[in-house]
Amino acid sequence: MDKGLSPSMFIGVRGNGIISFGSGQPDLPPPKEVLSCVPEPEDFKYGLVAGQVYLRKALSKEFKGSASDDFVITNGASEALDLTLRAIGKPKDKILIHKPYYYSYKPLIELNHMEPLYVETYKGKIDTDDFEKKVHKAKAVLINSPSNPTGRIQDIKTLKFIEKVTDDLDIPLLSDEVYKDLIYERENYMLSGPHVVTINSFSKTFDMCGARVGYLYSNDKPIVNEAVRLKTYTSMNTNILAQRMAYHATKVPRAFVDGQVKVWKQRRDLIYEGMCRLGLDVWKPEGAFYILPKIKNPRKFVWGMFKKHKVITYLGEWFGADDRVRFSYALDVEKIEEGLKRVGKYLKKN
Amino acid sequence: MDKGLSPSMFIGVRGNGIISFGSGQPDLPPPKEVLSCVPEPEDFKYGLVAGQVYLRKALSKEFKGSASDDFVITNGASEALDLTLRAIGKPKDKILIHKPYYYSYKPLIELNHMEPLYVETYKGKIDTDDFEKKVHKAKAVLINSPSNPTGRIQDIKTLKFIEKVTDDLDIPLLSDEVYKDLIYERENYMLSGPHVVTINSFSKTFDMCGARVGYLYSNDKPIVNEAVRLKTYTSMNTNILAQRMAYHATKVPRAFVDGQVKVWKQRRDLIYEGMCRLGLDVWKPEGAFYILPKIKNPRKFVWGMFKKHKVITYLGEWFGADDRVRFSYALDVEKIEEGLKRVGKYLKKN
Repeated sequence: MDKGLSPSMFIGVRGNGIISFGSGQPDLPPPKEVLSCVPEPEDFKYGLVAGQVYLRKALSKEFKGSASDDFVITNGASEALDLTLRAIGKPKDKILIHKPYYYSYKPLIELNHMEPLYVETYKGKIDTDDFEKKVHKAKAVLINSPSNPTGRIQDIKTLKFIEKVTDDLDIPLLSDEVYKDLIYERENYMLSGPHVVTINSFSKTFDMCGARVGYLYSNDKPIVNEAVRLKTYTSMNTNILAQRMAYHATKVPRAFVDGQVKVWKQRRDLIYEGMCRLGLDVWKPEGAFYILPKIKNPRKFVWGMFKKHKVITYLGEWFGADDRVRFSYALDVEKIEEGLKRVGKYLKKN
Repeated sequence: MDKGLSPSMFIGVRGNGIISFGSGQPDLPPPKEVLSCVPEPEDFKYGLVAGQVYLRKALSKEFKGSASDDFVITNGASEALDLTLRAIGKPKDKILIHKPYYYSYKPLIELNHMEPLYVETYKGKIDTDDFEKKVHKAKAVLINSPSNPTGRIQDIKTLKFIEKVTDDLDIPLLSDEVYKDLIYERENYMLSGPHVVTINSFSKTFDMCGARVGYLYSNDKPIVNEAVRLKTYTSMNTNILAQRMAYHATKVPRAFVDGQVKVWKQRRDLIYEGMCRLGLDVWKPEGAFYILPKIKNPRKFVWGMFKKHKVITYLGEWFGADDRVRFSYALDVEKIEEGLKRVGKYLKKN
């Protein structure tokens, strides 16, 4: 039965007529500059634990006021966040996150023996009063805008407020910005400050999820140094060839990303309007490629859609949204339309 | 000053006339089958968190009584060990290790909020009386034979004794066997049993350290399942192209490994005899590619050899051997000879 429902059950599951609104991975290929990287003997030697210098230098050009030593190249944003949590916290510390949250946050915090503290949101937007009430108990704050799973972005006013409060309290502000390049409604506003740790990834912007290259960036030297020290023991350097690919990705013309955003926006419109037509209660996504409709009996829905309709969706409760289901729309138009049809069929019968 | 001495300071440092007896990386190139793998679009999609099925199937053919689901492919043996510790333990648990130990063990145990418990060795061989006395306090046992940093192997009698004791106590027995293919004195004896977790890597056998592919293997289903669950949050799949390379490595004729072992053994003889000639107190390495001579004032030696003689060596205290220094001899003959000359010069003056 559905007892075994978990994200790891669906990650990497494809083929056989399955339409996957599951894991958040672009269906588009990576830039040709990335794909055409060929292995060289040097790629098989250990590299610096912090990451290859050429890649960190290239990244430092993207972030004003940064130096290459402020970066640590990691096995995806996941490892960047895990390392950061390990670097800043100790057992029983509380980490403030906003709900709904990316499904890894709660387990990552808990497997590091810390405790999540939840800030309420309204239609995905942070309740700043609730934030102010709870932030004093937190060892650190973790913000994710654009958000996985809601696709919502936080108002610039809210982001500046969070910067100020955490700066006044002198606590780390972790900013998971893996969708920073995928925003449809306005220019991005990236969190910054002396204790901000930016968590980022090449996966979503450059369609290279399977290569697992992410990074953390911070001007807070002790955090960066501790992350490097820990990574020396937990995984050593990130795959060198993948770092070379990521370096080539940093050189890809901006037009590549603009083209991607155009594609995601069309798909966003398609799925948002489709769900509205199906009568689903849904918030309009403003970035990333997720949408989180309210669904009656979500466990039954996710299990039934998978077993009977070959459609993978993710249970809202993994994201702290018990009455909802997450759809990733990183799929071509035909699949989104076919997927929506199958959802329509299910909804009629249930 | 030498305050900053740490392994991460030396990992990946090369060139400029430096002779590195530091990080344990083969100077030989990987097999041509590995080097000639070319990136394909599929390598950029998420894969199963546990690892690609073809690779796990290939591995299951190497281990009698194993199935592909008993394996988790990881970012090197380091991540395999970190995941295993996280899967089996909770804060304050004690993990039994033998001293001298691989430099990551103590920090890995501690960063997971557990405590190392040390078993004494005599010339690198486990004192079974001491083992028996301490094992009852341990949540798990971690064995490393051939050992990094001693290059010593444990007697088969000792290994069987450890298998029996841990089996009787029903506790996990972690076996770090990354040097399993590099033994000069006898056939390898791999630890096995219902709660054995084998930690392994493609790095040393196939000269592909920078690619970071390792794995854990166990017949203890709850441990494997928990490791997969955790990896879903901490790093997701291991780099897919690197897994494809590892798969090709499993197909490389045994002659490749035999050829490597022949090379390592020649170098072992060279450095062992050279150190004996220098009058150093040293145990003869039986596997891996490390040697751990006793050195007067090791901190001064490691710092002086690096700054004045451009020779990287690793401080014994990182391995729990305060009066020794580790040399990796994964270097060509000329460099070993030149490195020994420089050591000789230093010793004459100090």
